[in-house]
Amino acid sequence: MKKIQGGVTAPEGFLAAGVHAGIKKSKKDVAVIFSEKPAVGAAVFTTNKVKAAPILLSMENIKDQLISAIVVNSGNANACTGEEGMLAARQMLDETGKCLGIPISQILVASTGVIGVPLPVNKVLNGIRMACQALSREGSGAAAEAIMTTDTVPKEIAVEFEVYGKTVKVGGIAKGSGMIHPNMATMLAFITTDIGMEKELLQETLREVVDESFNMISVDGDSSTNDMVAVLANGLSGVWVESKEEEAYLKFKNALEYVAIYLAKAIARDGEGATRLIEVRVINAESLQKARKIARTVTSSNLFKAAVFGEDANWGRIITAVGYAGEEITVEKIDIYLGKVKVLQKGVPLPFSEEEAKEELAREEVIVTIDLNEGDANAVAWGCDLTYDYVKINASYRT
Amino acid sequence: MKKIQGGVTAPEGFLAAGVHAGIKKSKKDVAVIFSEKPAVGAAVFTTNKVKAAPILLSMENIKDQLISAIVVNSGNANACTGEEGMLAARQMLDETGKCLGIPISQILVASTGVIGVPLPVNKVLNGIRMACQALSREGSGAAAEAIMTTDTVPKEIAVEFEVYGKTVKVGGIAKGSGMIHPNMATMLAFITTDIGMEKELLQETLREVVDESFNMISVDGDSSTNDMVAVLANGLSGVWVESKEEEAYLKFKNALEYVAIYLAKAIARDGEGATRLIEVRVINAESLQKARKIARTVTSSNLFKAAVFGEDANWGRIITAVGYAGEEITVEKIDIYLGKVKVLQKGVPLPFSEEEAKEELAREEVIVTIDLNEGDANAVAWGCDLTYDYVKINASYRT
Repeated sequence: MKKIQGGVTAPEGFLAAGVHAGIKKSKKDVAVIFSEKPAVGAAVFTTNKVKAAPILLSMENIKDQLISAIVVNSGNANACTGEEGMLAARQMLDETGKCLGIPISQILVASTGVIGVPLPVNKVLNGIRMACQALSREGSGAAAEAIMTTDTVPKEIAVEFEVYGKTVKVGGIAKGSGMIHPNMATMLAFITTDIGMEKELLQETLREVVDESFNMISVDGDSSTNDMVAVLANGLSGVWVESKEEEAYLKFKNALEYVAIYLAKAIARDGEGATRLIEVRVINAESLQKARKIARTVTSSNLFKAAVFGEDANWGRIITAVGYAGEEITVEKIDIYLGKVKVLQKGVPLPFSEEEAKEELAREEVIVTIDLNEGDANAVAWGCDLTYDYVKINASYRT
Repeated sequence: MKKIQGGVTAPEGFLAAGVHAGIKKSKKDVAVIFSEKPAVGAAVFTTNKVKAAPILLSMENIKDQLISAIVVNSGNANACTGEEGMLAARQMLDETGKCLGIPISQILVASTGVIGVPLPVNKVLNGIRMACQALSREGSGAAAEAIMTTDTVPKEIAVEFEVYGKTVKVGGIAKGSGMIHPNMATMLAFITTDIGMEKELLQETLREVVDESFNMISVDGDSSTNDMVAVLANGLSGVWVESKEEEAYLKFKNALEYVAIYLAKAIARDGEGATRLIEVRVINAESLQKARKIARTVTSSNLFKAAVFGEDANWGRIITAVGYAGEEITVEKIDIYLGKVKVLQKGVPLPFSEEEAKEELAREEVIVTIDLNEGDANAVAWGCDLTYDYVKINASYRT
């Protein structure tokens, strides 16, 4: 497997575009991704009980076997906008279907931005028309830009691998960056691939991969009304996967994991106001569920996140978060490392060099390892530090 | 019922003291509360799986019928300090017992401050000796000061009421102010009363009152290793309560609620870096449990807390938090008010004056009402805004 250029348009048969439709002042705000051949689609959606209009429509459409396009606007979430919001989201589907000549049931629609403000429908529809005309094999970067809200950088990745003498590609784009928390936050990720497989297998694979990538990141503990991760598989590589045992499946899953984890980490790293990526590894746990719960709880601790910002080797906040994760633990077994510096051994503090610890906390990627010493399940979660800028952005954010 | 002076020493027979023992640089750091007549004791403790040494000892001692004293140090949590920590906490009991001439099983011990640093035992024991000598009927204020960590103000209250021709008093002190979250955080509250009742009834009453007071506040979502709320009832008012149906019981519970809610709100108001108290009222819910869960979830949302700091009428963050509280809701029934300004009706945004909303958010006590319109259960939770100073305090906090 190797990294390649091209994002969502790297796989065969995918086109994309991102345009400025005027929802935001000057930045791109409408994106379309299109597969020339109708693709098998799979998706997971926010677990928030309050779901935005586009999410409700996409949840309906994903039930169909085939998806040919994804249409997205940023700058307005079209959430808590009542009947009018549903109507506006349906108009987005209609316009995209008309422009691309495809049934509206083959389209996923997503929105991200401020909640409870009516969607400026005419601007969005005009943007959809522009985007459909601008679709190209080089459009991934523009699409990645057009789905951004408070993100500071676009998030894009693609990889390819060889199997059965053929080349398969997987590409993706994503956006963060506030309201990011396990189980889908204001997070959108769109992944494309030219491998082919049945919908059920694709959905199952996506679910598994999301559980170890997008569901393992947290920026601020808030889960949003609008999130989705979707994957479209159009089969144009000529490789068709039948079962989980096949070499092609294993290679594909590996590539999908790579892409998903890359995008998830990019979202955490670019969390609102963040200066550092925090990676929390929980190892030797009794169960995977426990390892994941504890890893996520630690990445979500405001106190620990603020300590990382302050480069303060306050491991007490880590063990405290381990303790309130709601899992049974044996404190007397736990070791904790800040980077390579061991600070806790069998539940008791070790003397350590504050300077070395500070060095580990000053890295761009801060790694914390929590060894529960009780089993063999491991999990990794990602988060970011809590900074003045997080407060600044969220005390005055207006699109 | 009326408010009176005197805090924990207002009720008959209680003495208290707070002294500077040198754990902190210059502020008071050791407190002792003493009941001249052994009191019936009740307490609730942190739910964190990692419990500090003093918590473990106090959990043991509270099983006894009688408690005569509470000894507390601030500046060091004596948590994650291994066998030595347990030894140090036991020494605190021994010294207190010796100074006061009471069995160590009649003493509760608590510590608060930095985690994982060995307790400076000699300083603490010396402090205990000084405090025991300084015990007085005017010592509540000094004790309230001596339990503070990053609190900016001491927290103290007392009330009295008449029943059966006698006067009953209830007093309390408490400290916050980071790591505050439902189910006991770095929060200590000590309540005294001169009413008398059986231990079982006192414990049951405390549990009920804590559930609507200290368990309904959140500063940052972190639950600590060290928290406890204890109440001592020494019976010296001459009023003895037998059953929940008695007038004296109802008046006492009412007074205890008043004291507990007063202290809980004082903790939330004085949350690290906070500039405002946030009160979230969830009304007309199907069940009390649901109302409480939703109220607590909203007070815990970083995004909403930052919006309050920015006086930003971003009610979308409120409905989002309602949605991820993990309770079944019907969006189409929900009304939301910022102060008196209705911003959401039956799940749909109402046009409102940004200026009026800003005014409501600029108050010292910001009140949010969420009407679920589905039942008749109500709950109130308290929190505070998320500010630059929260980050500042926690990025560099050292006792």
